[in-house]
Amino acid sequence: MATVKRPGGRTARNRDAVLAAARALLEQGREVTLQVLAAESGVHLSTLYRNWSAEEDIIREAALAASDSNLPLPDTGRLSTDLTRFLLKLRDYVRSPLGRALLSIPLSATANRADYWAGRLRRAAILFERAARRGEIRDNTEWSSVVVAAISPIYFHEMVVGTSMTNQQIRRHVDLIIVACRPVARDS
Amino acid sequence: MATVKRPGGRTARNRDAVLAAARALLEQGREVTLQVLAAESGVHLSTLYRNWSAEEDIIREAALAASDSNLPLPDTGRLSTDLTRFLLKLRDYVRSPLGRALLSIPLSATANRADYWAGRLRRAAILFERAARRGEIRDNTEWSSVVVAAISPIYFHEMVVGTSMTNQQIRRHVDLIIVACRPVARDS
Repeated sequence: MATVKRPGGRTARNRDAVLAAARALLEQGREVTLQVLAAESGVHLSTLYRNWSAEEDIIREAALAASDSNLPLPDTGRLSTDLTRFLLKLRDYVRSPLGRALLSIPLSATANRADYWAGRLRRAAILFERAARRGEIRDNTEWSSVVVAAISPIYFHEMVVGTSMTNQQIRRHVDLIIVACRPVARDS
Repeated sequence: MATVKRPGGRTARNRDAVLAAARALLEQGREVTLQVLAAESGVHLSTLYRNWSAEEDIIREAALAASDSNLPLPDTGRLSTDLTRFLLKLRDYVRSPLGRALLSIPLSATANRADYWAGRLRRAAILFERAARRGEIRDNTEWSSVVVAAISPIYFHEMVVGTSMTNQQIRRHVDLIIVACRPVARDS
């Protein structure tokens, strides 16, 4: 039972193994506990305790890593197509076991959730920045409020109303957002 | 302990007493259980069991009744002012103990949540219908998607990001919604 110094790559491999195990459990709809994670990942329970204070931290990291890989930013050369594809994927992610798991983590358990979201919003803003460069929409120095307006109905339907947005509802919402961003001569 | 037939108004009075007790408990941030509700409202526990299957039903009814009274529809004659006032009030309601209690009820426990929301959306659409009649915005046969776009960021910030929208964020969002609804000559 003597502990042995392990080479540097060990920590990263442990981390990857634990996050992969967490993701697999979530996708199967199984409960994620530190004990089960240790068994499934082959990482010692003591190592888990040392690196994460709670299951929630691991679930959040796993869901975060998966959200980046599940949600590529489309680049079709047209904002309405890009945004429609992005929101369809976002809806599917949010209602997946992994997405639901992330949203069901109590807000109190995720201290840096605001930072996480700031990063997510900046990333989605790329769709709008590209469209502005193409002249499709007005330029804007502050895209986060537009991105929030674009993605919020997905979460509202899923978390508050208890339904998923239909494809038609998503397309109608994209039209609304595009009109809101259109370059128009404003009377000043 | 013999039960006695009570006059007809008794049922309604019991209901009001229970909902008022539930609302008071929620506003004080106290836990709502059928036992506590019976004690606070003076209504027999057996009556509570007969009329509601779970605390969640009572919490939902209480929050629903309060949301209608807490959120009057402004009528200032200008959509941007109406919508800003409405969203400021909505934000304050959603982050109140009563609003949080309603949102924390598991979706599975609220079978008719979709109906409830359809009613809420129809009510908020009145703000837009009035503005369309004044010629401020385009006419629309289907306001629910506009209303969803208008209110969703409030819930997204509160439930997902874990922050409340600032007044400035609300004003910026109202501007976006108004632009999206503006009457403009479209190239057809």
